[in-house]
Amino acid sequence: MMRTRPLKVALLGCGVVGSEVARIMTTHAEDLAQRIGAPVELAGVAVRRPDRVRAGIAPELVTTDAAALVAREDVDVVVEVIGGIEPARSLITSAFQHGASVVTANKALLAEDGATLHEAAEKHAADLFYEAAVAAAIPLVRPLRESLAGDTVNRVLGIVNGTTNFILDRMDSTGAGYAEALDEATALGYAEADPTADVEGFDAAAKAAILAGIAFHTRVRLDDVHREGLTEVSAADIASARRMGCTVKLLAICERAADGRSVTARVHPAMIPLSHPLASVREAYNAVFVESEAAGQLMFYGPGAGGSPTASAVLGDLVAACRNKLNGAKGPGESAYTQLPVSPMGEVVTRYHISLDVADKPGVLAQVATVFAEHGVSIDTVRQKGKEGAHDGAWLVVVTHRAADAALSATVEALRGLDTVRGVASIMRVEGE
Amino acid sequence: MMRTRPLKVALLGCGVVGSEVARIMTTHAEDLAQRIGAPVELAGVAVRRPDRVRAGIAPELVTTDAAALVAREDVDVVVEVIGGIEPARSLITSAFQHGASVVTANKALLAEDGATLHEAAEKHAADLFYEAAVAAAIPLVRPLRESLAGDTVNRVLGIVNGTTNFILDRMDSTGAGYAEALDEATALGYAEADPTADVEGFDAAAKAAILAGIAFHTRVRLDDVHREGLTEVSAADIASARRMGCTVKLLAICERAADGRSVTARVHPAMIPLSHPLASVREAYNAVFVESEAAGQLMFYGPGAGGSPTASAVLGDLVAACRNKLNGAKGPGESAYTQLPVSPMGEVVTRYHISLDVADKPGVLAQVATVFAEHGVSIDTVRQKGKEGAHDGAWLVVVTHRAADAALSATVEALRGLDTVRGVASIMRVEGE
Repeated sequence: MMRTRPLKVALLGCGVVGSEVARIMTTHAEDLAQRIGAPVELAGVAVRRPDRVRAGIAPELVTTDAAALVAREDVDVVVEVIGGIEPARSLITSAFQHGASVVTANKALLAEDGATLHEAAEKHAADLFYEAAVAAAIPLVRPLRESLAGDTVNRVLGIVNGTTNFILDRMDSTGAGYAEALDEATALGYAEADPTADVEGFDAAAKAAILAGIAFHTRVRLDDVHREGLTEVSAADIASARRMGCTVKLLAICERAADGRSVTARVHPAMIPLSHPLASVREAYNAVFVESEAAGQLMFYGPGAGGSPTASAVLGDLVAACRNKLNGAKGPGESAYTQLPVSPMGEVVTRYHISLDVADKPGVLAQVATVFAEHGVSIDTVRQKGKEGAHDGAWLVVVTHRAADAALSATVEALRGLDTVRGVASIMRVEGE
Repeated sequence: MMRTRPLKVALLGCGVVGSEVARIMTTHAEDLAQRIGAPVELAGVAVRRPDRVRAGIAPELVTTDAAALVAREDVDVVVEVIGGIEPARSLITSAFQHGASVVTANKALLAEDGATLHEAAEKHAADLFYEAAVAAAIPLVRPLRESLAGDTVNRVLGIVNGTTNFILDRMDSTGAGYAEALDEATALGYAEADPTADVEGFDAAAKAAILAGIAFHTRVRLDDVHREGLTEVSAADIASARRMGCTVKLLAICERAADGRSVTARVHPAMIPLSHPLASVREAYNAVFVESEAAGQLMFYGPGAGGSPTASAVLGDLVAACRNKLNGAKGPGESAYTQLPVSPMGEVVTRYHISLDVADKPGVLAQVATVFAEHGVSIDTVRQKGKEGAHDGAWLVVVTHRAADAALSATVEALRGLDTVRGVASIMRVEGE
């Protein structure tokens, strides 16, 4: 039954993920051959620093000429784990032109310019698989692309960045501030030396763009995703969340509008009730809820990063791409037929938790309540308390009912204009209720 | 781009699931056409009682002759939601012989004789998809068959039967006994009039057989699965679990042996710590953990039954089968190359919680402890307490370290032979630690 000529894989990048992919391809060669129906082997490994020792990879496979590697006629599948926009995009496009299918973990490129990749794959009747681009080994791309292909997804909501979840988990459990928790994350290897992509929400926003595109069968780019990182989240915000029976998580939320005619995608810190399953997602784990018409609410949970989990996702895609190559078949391509537009953040409807630093005088609450009412934002609860050690100040904590983000912004702007409001200490959305 | 000749689907069965499949095929026809690349429509609907009114299904599509329907030349995909062994098996086999692919939700048939179905599919180069057979819309079959195809799964552990989870959840939250909780489940529609398949664990065991077969790339049949239902679980067991910081769940557990040379599959009630994510799975929800070498621990959660969720899974498979038909492709077939044998329950290694009714005399604990030691079963904790209102009896509650099931059975047999042991009130395995 089994073909003897092996399928050939070009591996672009041999860092944490790439070296693990190469290792498993060697140690589990027989299993992979059985599952694919033919042996699979490395055609070459493109790296930047060829002098670095790479255990288990034959030195003659290592090359610095990635462009030549992807252009080789005998390459069936290209695995791209370099990351970044260029040269990844050019290499992937070239791979398709030369007849290969592509497996990539490159969330930044997919979110920036997925259309170019999908179009190249389509044109050359090749597979473009990218399970590893979102939440590592947690199956999300395939379930959305295939398992729910007969259903209508209305919402994807989850924790898709392990670094920020680790930081928030530490802030919540130890009372530490953001800077201190970030230091710990860095020391433990959960945060990179330059943590910008994680803490500013770029990584999560790229994943949100990918998930929204698949879930709603439209195109969503990184620029379409409203993004707020967690650098502004304070120990006081976390403590305030606790008092509400909530915790703070950095959430990626993709929603279809109630009328079905547009979608939104956003990444920001939000309070969620402690009773919500996402509240108990600890350390660097990821978890994503998918809500659809027929299936109802599904949750997927697991390690969202790391060399081994990401390699697992890459290898699952590699097996599928190889099987298709062998059988002259092709997996699902891009599905963007709905062409639903992405609405701006102002149209997102959710709840808000707002802390105001106010003068401790009669009539302040009435003034504040009037401003909310004038902007059509309905108040759910208000809590007033005097400041410790202060003689003439107080905190006013307002939680609203559901309102449009634009209305809330206008409300806050107006509140800032009140004489009695000294400052808006924090504004945080409340989700998961 | 789109082909105009529609793909034709034969629907076998039009009960809760079948009618929902037909409904969504109608209401979402345009979406399905876009996702498949061609329109898809019903060729016919085979039912037992044609006189029953079926909203939204054209009367001329309804037939009682399922055999003739699956043999029609124009049928591309057969959806089987009749259930049971026959006539489902003959109809599916005939469908393959006549060139159709098959989507089925039939866990009983797959667990009883999946090999026959897989071989027929293979012979006729057709797809056999069955996501709906396990945990309804929760993607498990596809993730195991495809997403983890490059990984090595070591364990699948979860709650795969909603009826029994509902019953145990009620017993745990209200203190009700089994009979009372079953009555409530029946009244609310969570249990069938004859609840045997659920409460005796047959349904969960069929799902365990299917999951174990896919996870370990071998064949596992219903008869290979050790099965204990929950009819013997008492309110006292639940209370005892609570005292240990545990709750009781009916678990399906599929494991690869430590040496990798065999597998086990079992369904039985077990105590799990309240801190374990499965402990918080409420009502009729399902949740499954999958542990693999590279991906680590993944969890999948959602509604495990019901017409809509099951229809969602059927339709996802239907889209995939239709796409493949259109492109002359085929999804993954059976993967049973490891041929790993299924070991008997005696070889399963786990922990145990045993309640003994003993005489309240000095030396009883020493006697009991000696019996455990003689059988190589190491004790973790022992709790002794006098019976309320009794003058000469006591309870001895023993929790063991990990031991082979056969050694535990021999221990219990020997304990029963002791003069000082009046009875073994309960034996329950402890999982998830």
